[in-house]
Amino acid sequence: MKEQIQKTFEALFALEDIREVLREALPTGPDPAEEQAIREGVARVRAVLDDLEAGTGSPQVTKIAGSLDIRNREEAYINIQPIQAAGRLTLEARKALIAYGDGYSTCDACRKPFRLDQITKPPIAAFHEDLARFLNMDVVRVVPGARRGFQAVASTLVKPGDPVIVSALAHYTEFLAVEGAGGVVKEVSVSKENLVTPDAVAAKIEDVRRETGRTPALAMIDHVDYQFGNVHDVAGIAKVAHQYDVPFLLNGAYTVGTMPVDGRAIGADFVVGSGHKSMASPAPSGVLAATAEWAPRVFRTTAMVGDLTRRKFGVKEVEMLGCTLMGANLIAMMASFPAVRERTLRWDEEVKKSNHFIDGLLAIEGTKVLSEYPRKHTLTKVDTTGSFDTVAATHKRRGFFLSDELSGRGIAGEFAGATRTWKLNTFGLSWKKIRYLTEAFQEIAAKYELNVRTA
Amino acid sequence: MKEQIQKTFEALFALEDIREVLREALPTGPDPAEEQAIREGVARVRAVLDDLEAGTGSPQVTKIAGSLDIRNREEAYINIQPIQAAGRLTLEARKALIAYGDGYSTCDACRKPFRLDQITKPPIAAFHEDLARFLNMDVVRVVPGARRGFQAVASTLVKPGDPVIVSALAHYTEFLAVEGAGGVVKEVSVSKENLVTPDAVAAKIEDVRRETGRTPALAMIDHVDYQFGNVHDVAGIAKVAHQYDVPFLLNGAYTVGTMPVDGRAIGADFVVGSGHKSMASPAPSGVLAATAEWAPRVFRTTAMVGDLTRRKFGVKEVEMLGCTLMGANLIAMMASFPAVRERTLRWDEEVKKSNHFIDGLLAIEGTKVLSEYPRKHTLTKVDTTGSFDTVAATHKRRGFFLSDELSGRGIAGEFAGATRTWKLNTFGLSWKKIRYLTEAFQEIAAKYELNVRTA
Repeated sequence: MKEQIQKTFEALFALEDIREVLREALPTGPDPAEEQAIREGVARVRAVLDDLEAGTGSPQVTKIAGSLDIRNREEAYINIQPIQAAGRLTLEARKALIAYGDGYSTCDACRKPFRLDQITKPPIAAFHEDLARFLNMDVVRVVPGARRGFQAVASTLVKPGDPVIVSALAHYTEFLAVEGAGGVVKEVSVSKENLVTPDAVAAKIEDVRRETGRTPALAMIDHVDYQFGNVHDVAGIAKVAHQYDVPFLLNGAYTVGTMPVDGRAIGADFVVGSGHKSMASPAPSGVLAATAEWAPRVFRTTAMVGDLTRRKFGVKEVEMLGCTLMGANLIAMMASFPAVRERTLRWDEEVKKSNHFIDGLLAIEGTKVLSEYPRKHTLTKVDTTGSFDTVAATHKRRGFFLSDELSGRGIAGEFAGATRTWKLNTFGLSWKKIRYLTEAFQEIAAKYELNVRTA
Repeated sequence: MKEQIQKTFEALFALEDIREVLREALPTGPDPAEEQAIREGVARVRAVLDDLEAGTGSPQVTKIAGSLDIRNREEAYINIQPIQAAGRLTLEARKALIAYGDGYSTCDACRKPFRLDQITKPPIAAFHEDLARFLNMDVVRVVPGARRGFQAVASTLVKPGDPVIVSALAHYTEFLAVEGAGGVVKEVSVSKENLVTPDAVAAKIEDVRRETGRTPALAMIDHVDYQFGNVHDVAGIAKVAHQYDVPFLLNGAYTVGTMPVDGRAIGADFVVGSGHKSMASPAPSGVLAATAEWAPRVFRTTAMVGDLTRRKFGVKEVEMLGCTLMGANLIAMMASFPAVRERTLRWDEEVKKSNHFIDGLLAIEGTKVLSEYPRKHTLTKVDTTGSFDTVAATHKRRGFFLSDELSGRGIAGEFAGATRTWKLNTFGLSWKKIRYLTEAFQEIAAKYELNVRTA
């Protein structure tokens, strides 16, 4: 298959060569030399297609711009990398990237009032409405990454010295957003099951009020945390936060775009999602949604007036820095959206596949799962200290033996060399791949004489 | 040519269909049904190639994801849109986008200390060094757009109430960055030639000190402004700023990636560039560079410690929010970089072409150029009130007559309907296109009986 993959890339690149000739041609059409170049280009694509079909041919192109390998991780491997799974592009997103890669490609028909979210061609304005409905929130903006959502909200609500509630499992970007605004993170403890509970949030808010005399300016809690992939009771947490008059930001980096997220039902004041983590979009991309109550604050428009020219840019939003996610990333996000929306409805099946694989891994004696179990998400932390790590202890490649074995079976994305605690993500893998993956791990176990219980 | 362009896209898309089959296949290779799908896919590409070569065939694909037109502005038209010209992707960037579109595609080999700018495979760390050398600055980071550079610097240096020097031609994103930090913009007046002079900057700093009792926290001046495309004496301005101990940020959105920019020679403390505006990169992308003196402040690492877990994320930079431009945009920026670096050395030729076209436009009686003249840049503001607008006055399509005429000649990117003052950008057009463009405008003028002086 390696040959077919390589030849597919070569054919795509050879077509881009032809496209470049067309870009150089005058609107009146290619001149004779350009026509000749196109004919030669077509002949090259045809030759590549012959190889593609036959599964033959040695690589003719190995680098892009002289320094970049052709990345084929999603074609040549089953990728279980914890942060990459749900950011894999859809077919339509890849086509969109081809057509909209150029810089300001979204801005061809930008008209008054000159703001990205109001452009109707391509249908960016309608996409914003769709996204708001999808999250059941009132107002959304696209942003270059979830972290920009945290930053915008923290910058709006958090004043120097303000305490902000996060959890002991919070992502580092929440720390940075609070720090940037001059606030101080206050971590909620987790239960022994590594869950953030409403009671623990209430207790922390009480503690903070007692210690600092201030009510937290904001609570940011991960719907599903990055460390265990556990699903936390965010609706319960939102309720508690509101009892103390603390606005609640839902960090949906691992949920918006993978599982159903109903911001209103959860009671979130803000919902943040990640395009490149969970919405099948290129990085950086993301979404920030707010309720009608909070939107005017986080999406406030500029009030600055030039002292000399009296210029005002009244429609531009301060925290968004005006337009946000112009170009290829937004268009790819839009192209993926119909598939992304639909896949959240099949979340139960993703959870089933996750459990199928984890059960297969647990059948290898000595293996433990550190995440909640049965799994409710596709991101899982496992502990193979009692299984694969016992092999690593005496293997000349140490922990890399497992990477070697996986790689040899066309599996990528484990943390190379790690055989104790590590994370993986099965999101989006077909049943066929889930079974192959499960068998591969059991096969490796058996090869190194670990006991594998049969189902 | 329209057919050839359309068929090129269709062939690219049909290859992505094949790629999708390969993505669904197991690492052991396609199963019989998948092999069949690949064969059928190849046959479809071949049929499309026949049409491409012959210039025949009606469009088979008109939408991506059901809602997005196939954008062919760079293939079917000569694009003179003021902000798009230098953000057009290079051939290598388009290939890179194809291979690296998936979410976290840059992160396959992310190892300790887990920060984007230190990844060596793909060679992101080396690219950062190249970029620093290119700008002759000490430290650079990639960012999602120039505006994020302004924001990071303003957030670091500007305290509430601080005055910040900008010019009367400043871009609105500078206003927003200052406002976000709680500062107040103070605009430097322009000369009657629409130039920002060192003397005017000095006078403004004096005024501000007198009025507010404070020294400005920062001066941000556009190397080339977005309104006229005039080249300002930024070295002189930097010198003046430093005489008053005001740090100087060079806004190189229209210069970094198009003309030589030597940050050290200019005396900039910070240089900001735009990937999608001037570095042949997808949006959003950009660069923020600093001197060794300022880098530790704007790129300071986090000091926040979890109160419960004692977690620290010490290597992550607060203003950068950790990693910045992961994914496709960075890789495309890297793929374009060798060509971008090289093209800045041919800047004189770009200026020649700009003047050739503007001279051709000025030959149409009644036409004026509002930018400095002769042109020193490719972005130009023209005034056709005395020429094309006299036609619009009685034409049933009003100002759109010009758009119609241009569009009919395969020219796009003028501000639709505008026949008084408007902007255009000739960056990157070949001499062949420049001549075609010049003739097209003169031809339209002649058609409507405007006088055209012969050279």
